[in-house]
This record gives sequence, C-alpha cells and structure tokens, in this order.
Amino acid sequence: MLYILITYDINTTSLNGQARLRKVAKVCINYGQRVQNSVFECKVNEAQYRELQHKLLKIIDKNVDSLRFYRLGENYDKKVKHIGAKQTYKVDDPMIL
Amino acid sequence: MLYILITYDINTTSLNGQARLRKVAKVCINYGQRVQNSVFECKVNEAQYRELQHKLLKIIDKNVDSLRFYRLGENYDKKVKHIGAKQTYKVDDPMIL
Repeated sequence: MLYILITYDINTTSLNGQARLRKVAKVCINYGQRVQNSVFECKVNEAQYRELQHKLLKIIDKNVDSLRFYRLGENYDKKVKHIGAKQTYKVDDPMIL
Repeated sequence: MLYILITYDINTTSLNGQARLRKVAKVCINYGQRVQNSVFECKVNEAQYRELQHKLLKIIDKNVDSLRFYRLGENYDKKVKHIGAKQTYKVDDPMIL
C-alpha cells in the first residue's frame, strides 16, 4: 500500500472556486482521512492512486489551483508530528475562511 | 539533513488569527520554501528543527490552530508530485482567503 499525503490550494476567489474546493474534499475523503482543512492522508494502492489523481485533475483549474502529492512511505505515522487542535471535518461543511 | 514538510491550519476567525497566520509563515520562510498557502518544505538539521518547532509553538493557539510536521526523508523531491498553479508568495502578502 502507498501512504499519500495530499495538500491543495484551491483559489476560492476564482469562479466556482468554492464548488471545486468542496468537490476536491469529497473525492479525497473516499480515499483517506482529512487531517487539516486542505490536507488528507490516504492509504491507497497504485490503481487507486491513479484513479484519485485522475478524479482530482478533472475537478481543479490547473491555472489557479494547486495540488501536491507526497509519497510518505511505510510506517508514516512515525514520521508525523501533530501539535494543536484536531478538527473533525464534515465534508459538506461550508469552508470557514 | 532532515526534509520536513510543515502544514498548518490557523483559525483566522479567532482573535489575532490573521496575525498568528502571518507570524507562522514568517518563521517558516526562514527554514524553507513555501509551496502552498499553508505548506512549507524545509531542509533543516535536528537543532534547527527543534528551534523551528519551538518558535511555532510560541506563536500558535493550541486550542484552535493545528500544526503538522512530516519527516519526508532523503531524496524527497522524488516523492513529491505537483499539479497546477505554482504561486509565488511574499510573506507579507495579506492572506487571500
């Protein structure tokens, strides 16, 4: 399995930015857990990873939005340190900006 | 050297949230490069990493803000995939929310 960290910046000032933001979160939640507003940790196989990228690519506007995928490798949980509040996210929550 | 990815959510609706957000970015920029609004990639040694964490801890409000540190390990640039716009950030830029 692959441990993939997804971070994204969706330009919410552009047309349909808020809608793209919600769609990206709705796709990502099917592949992993949301750990921050625009950060997901996903445990996927290669096929799922390709599928995930493909779906996200169809949503974002490449001119104004930014997607980053980090391969964290095995036992990634030992490589992560969290400090502060742990939000619980409902995907349909309006983004608190 | 350590390759550390920093992601953060600063609650800008809380008191002094915007100021904390700017301060966190100002500290991080001294240790690495900003790759998304709230995502920095830092190349640091253990002492610098401790120092960086210490400085950020003094800025954030642990009740409402969230900081995550990911140890990416060597040749992390092979583990990162970017799609979309590459923002250039000026640390003093007002956050476009």
